[in-house]
Amino acid sequence: MATAADQNVEFVRTGYGKNIVKVLCIRQRGNHHSIIELKANVEITLKSRKDYLTGDNSDIIPTDTIKNTVHALAKLKGVKNIEQFSLDICNHFLTSFNHVTRAKVYMEEAPWKRLEKNGREHAHAFIYSPEAYRFCDVEQNLNGAPVVHSGLKDMKVLKTTQSGFEGFFRDRFTTLQETKDRCFCTSVYARWRYNKIQDVDFDAAWKSVKETIIEKFAGPYDQGVYSPSVQKTLYETQVLVLERIPEVDEIEIIMPNQHYFIIDMTKMGIVNKKEVLLPLDNPSGNITGTVRRKQRARL
Amino acid sequence: MATAADQNVEFVRTGYGKNIVKVLCIRQRGNHHSIIELKANVEITLKSRKDYLTGDNSDIIPTDTIKNTVHALAKLKGVKNIEQFSLDICNHFLTSFNHVTRAKVYMEEAPWKRLEKNGREHAHAFIYSPEAYRFCDVEQNLNGAPVVHSGLKDMKVLKTTQSGFEGFFRDRFTTLQETKDRCFCTSVYARWRYNKIQDVDFDAAWKSVKETIIEKFAGPYDQGVYSPSVQKTLYETQVLVLERIPEVDEIEIIMPNQHYFIIDMTKMGIVNKKEVLLPLDNPSGNITGTVRRKQRARL
Amino acid sequence: MATAADQNVEFVRTGYGKNIVKVLCIRQRGNHHSIIELKANVEITLKSRKDYLTGDNSDIIPTDTIKNTVHALAKLKGVKNIEQFSLDICNHFLTSFNHVTRAKVYMEEAPWKRLEKNGREHAHAFIYSPEAYRFCDVEQNLNGAPVVHSGLKDMKVLKTTQSGFEGFFRDRFTTLQETKDRCFCTSVYARWRYNKIQDVDFDAAWKSVKETIIEKFAGPYDQGVYSPSVQKTLYETQVLVLERIPEVDEIEIIMPNQHYFIIDMTKMGIVNKKEVLLPLDNPSGNITGTVRRKQRARL
Amino acid sequence: MATAADQNVEFVRTGYGKNIVKVLCIRQRGNHHSIIELKANVEITLKSRKDYLTGDNSDIIPTDTIKNTVHALAKLKGVKNIEQFSLDICNHFLTSFNHVTRAKVYMEEAPWKRLEKNGREHAHAFIYSPEAYRFCDVEQNLNGAPVVHSGLKDMKVLKTTQSGFEGFFRDRFTTLQETKDRCFCTSVYARWRYNKIQDVDFDAAWKSVKETIIEKFAGPYDQGVYSPSVQKTLYETQVLVLERIPEVDEIEIIMPNQHYFIIDMTKMGIVNKKEVLLPLDNPSGNITGTVRRKQRARL
Repeated sequence: MATAADQNVEFVRTGYGKNIVKVLCIRQRGNHHSIIELKANVEITLKSRKDYLTGDNSDIIPTDTIKNTVHALAKLKGVKNIEQFSLDICNHFLTSFNHVTRAKVYMEEAPWKRLEKNGREHAHAFIYSPEAYRFCDVEQNLNGAPVVHSGLKDMKVLKTTQSGFEGFFRDRFTTLQETKDRCFCTSVYARWRYNKIQDVDFDAAWKSVKETIIEKFAGPYDQGVYSPSVQKTLYETQVLVLERIPEVDEIEIIMPNQHYFIIDMTKMGIVNKKEVLLPLDNPSGNITGTVRRKQRARL
Repeated sequence: MATAADQNVEFVRTGYGKNIVKVLCIRQRGNHHSIIELKANVEITLKSRKDYLTGDNSDIIPTDTIKNTVHALAKLKGVKNIEQFSLDICNHFLTSFNHVTRAKVYMEEAPWKRLEKNGREHAHAFIYSPEAYRFCDVEQNLNGAPVVHSGLKDMKVLKTTQSGFEGFFRDRFTTLQETKDRCFCTSVYARWRYNKIQDVDFDAAWKSVKETIIEKFAGPYDQGVYSPSVQKTLYETQVLVLERIPEVDEIEIIMPNQHYFIIDMTKMGIVNKKEVLLPLDNPSGNITGTVRRKQRARL
Repeated sequence: MATAADQNVEFVRTGYGKNIVKVLCIRQRGNHHSIIELKANVEITLKSRKDYLTGDNSDIIPTDTIKNTVHALAKLKGVKNIEQFSLDICNHFLTSFNHVTRAKVYMEEAPWKRLEKNGREHAHAFIYSPEAYRFCDVEQNLNGAPVVHSGLKDMKVLKTTQSGFEGFFRDRFTTLQETKDRCFCTSVYARWRYNKIQDVDFDAAWKSVKETIIEKFAGPYDQGVYSPSVQKTLYETQVLVLERIPEVDEIEIIMPNQHYFIIDMTKMGIVNKKEVLLPLDNPSGNITGTVRRKQRARL
Repeated sequence: MATAADQNVEFVRTGYGKNIVKVLCIRQRGNHHSIIELKANVEITLKSRKDYLTGDNSDIIPTDTIKNTVHALAKLKGVKNIEQFSLDICNHFLTSFNHVTRAKVYMEEAPWKRLEKNGREHAHAFIYSPEAYRFCDVEQNLNGAPVVHSGLKDMKVLKTTQSGFEGFFRDRFTTLQETKDRCFCTSVYARWRYNKIQDVDFDAAWKSVKETIIEKFAGPYDQGVYSPSVQKTLYETQVLVLERIPEVDEIEIIMPNQHYFIIDMTKMGIVNKKEVLLPLDNPSGNITGTVRRKQRARL
């Protein structure tokens, strides 16, 4: 079936699977119900490419089966957390078949929070509380160890002071004013890599990263902490995460700078000093950085 | 300029304004900063329709001016809450001009929550916490009293038990099974009308509605409360709101039934008893109802 | 079961149903396939409110049955267009049950367009082409005639000239400059009411409204037509629709003014004359109007 | 300023810039206006990391300046197409500064289409016609050649027949039925790399990829072409693109399988044979592949 055209091209990468496989898992201990709701994207790569090349489907595990497998494993293995469940799914595909060479799972958890009142927890009722979203991805090659990343996204924080931006480079297109006191708002994205799989408390690690980001952003509760740039705040957060969580070897953070501009009311004869600001949807600054433990530090 | 066509048509309604006018208001008391971020849709109706009919713009207050006005009033009047600010805007347009016959403001507040840790509040840092959105609308006609509605939307709650649906009507298209124990998830919308404007604590009223909805949905924290239908739960919530908040005369609630189905795994040889469920994006049931205080009860 | 609280409240409105019921209908004529994909919100009101009051479900036609009914009617009646299918659904609920007092259907059609090349139509392949969305709603009360509205939404058009805004009202908050030549962009929403149900070509009427809106917006293809305000353009469009389509008695149009501002580059030493503009997501102007045939004109 | 913690970590990657910088460019030739509306994400990397490490901002070209630069270059250089404009922006940052080591631009074009009627083009009026979105990204390192990718996304196509899926692998979790005739709907994403920068007609290449995807999906207009799997259709499209466009060296395509299931109406006593189908929002199959010209073929 190979045509002349075929002979001139080669594969760089193949993969297929099922996206947005949703599950709600309920665990009952007597009266007390716990839940995890998740959505998963699962992708596998097969040894041969005959499906692409000749339409021979005999190696294809249908995407419908991949969906069924997620459902079945949720029941058979249980879902302790999204990282463990993603590991279980990768493991299943690499060990149950001889012709799967790679498995990758991206998973997101729905931010359900148990209802609480005056310190009492509700037995079975929950509220959707999206202060931040938790996700992970796990990728594993046949005969290789799984690589686990966890992440947090869409956590929006704002402080009305203790942020400035001065002493920057100026060229002919620079019109920005320096400032010692601006409003700083960002929607944090962070994704980190673990250096091991066993004996990691993924839940505690996620909470620790979340709290570290908030701590470095907000500073002490009575007076805050000054941020001279998003870059500095971002980097200090990364250093502290690596210091606090030995199981994490590398962390990427993206902090958009979602601008709030003081509205100039002078044409209306009004003096407005950082009292009324304009939230800008776009454009936004975008500051990124990835840092890792030094090699010798990892030994 | 009137054409033959014009003579055959008449206006039912006109109105224009500015949508999605955004503002962040910062109030500083020494070290302590408070914020309200809002977006407003403002619409006014003019006495004459000559702008529509002949392109005579001389009565049009530009939508750009309407935006400026929202900014200026935020500075000059301050923003105590969205209801009061909406009242101020309506009042401005009806009293500053002779040719505005109606003003309407829809306003939504961004769900910023002050950072807290162990009971201590942060001086100036906030997190976006969208458990529920607060909105209001105020409409006022020239020489009329303003009508104020407040609302809550997108509050998603889920309970894993204490919900059923039995004894319903069956016809030839009915395939649904009766159940005494299902998962119940909804995203609540509520909108209520106040019977007065002065001396209303809009913040307390909003919180009270929110808590009443949660209370009726979740029931006692140790064992919940059984819901025989969304209809019943919705109505009981309304009755309790009207009982608790004398300033409210009417309330509409919409409770979609966001389905979670138990995944049938029998073809895979697995027994699954309400452990692994499938969240359905659509379709969803949609239960609505509006109730009000009886006339005699209002006397 | 009536409590003291119940005796103080009364219903203003009840209704329930199924939202976002999706269907793809395929009609095969030999080799030639035609499709309509739609999503429907169906709501009905029952004679009694005992479901709300006492949890007695015996009158409730389950929302699951409502979904099944849409599916079944699509098969049994066929879907000629969304207006006719909505009429069929309303009719079904009002005639098949003794205890349904009102039915309402909102329906949206997916903008699939048959593939065409050089005037030849493809037998069975389609492309999603969302230049504008078509929707309708039909509402009918027991023993009443159905009221049919059709609509068009999200049709975004832009012209780079032949639009201005001058001679408007000025107050202390007005900072806008007058202009004879601006960029005008809008995303049109239109919704109109038919004065009859039989012998209406709903497809032709929808196309005619769409073309009329474009014609009045764009003007002659060689030089366009000057718009002195959104209000004037909106009204002229309405007049022409009512003139062209006798089956339409009333039409609402909403034309947001989606601003494009000329970027001021003077601080960078650059002169920019309407060459480079900034598209603004928000705020946007919002111009609305509803007109109808005069009563005597309808006689 | 280096702390003990700093000494244990190292940078993997840094970069910052401005996201969602929007521009509408109008080119006037007498009466005839042409437009390109775009949004750009621009990211640069600086030689030093002292901004991250010590809060020394002296090397930072503010993100506000980056936005201004996009605006200014649009005016000074003009925007022929998004690929050329992205190249111009990269070139600016790498040649105007000594301390920028990398520049990357992602750009998306708004799908404005000139109004046409009976073959006549409108002088200055356009309609938003999002059948497919065009994007590109250009990345360039100091002293390196720019790497240009173009792409197409969100092009949704559907065919009601000439698609099947048979002979696939079965395991204990497989419940899918084989089929020779199913509805096939996908939303195509494609991204390809050029092997040169000069003398490439980016507009023609984009159109050619778009048409090739449609051609392979739909087949001959009278009877279509049978697809035995998404994999096969995807790969054949890639081979044909590389055959047709010599300037393209590599292409990735993602074709989700957006399922439409035949609704089983047997419980309602109705026989439904591929007449009424249920569009599923999720989950969706997801088929991906990247192929390139063979090395020797490139010589």
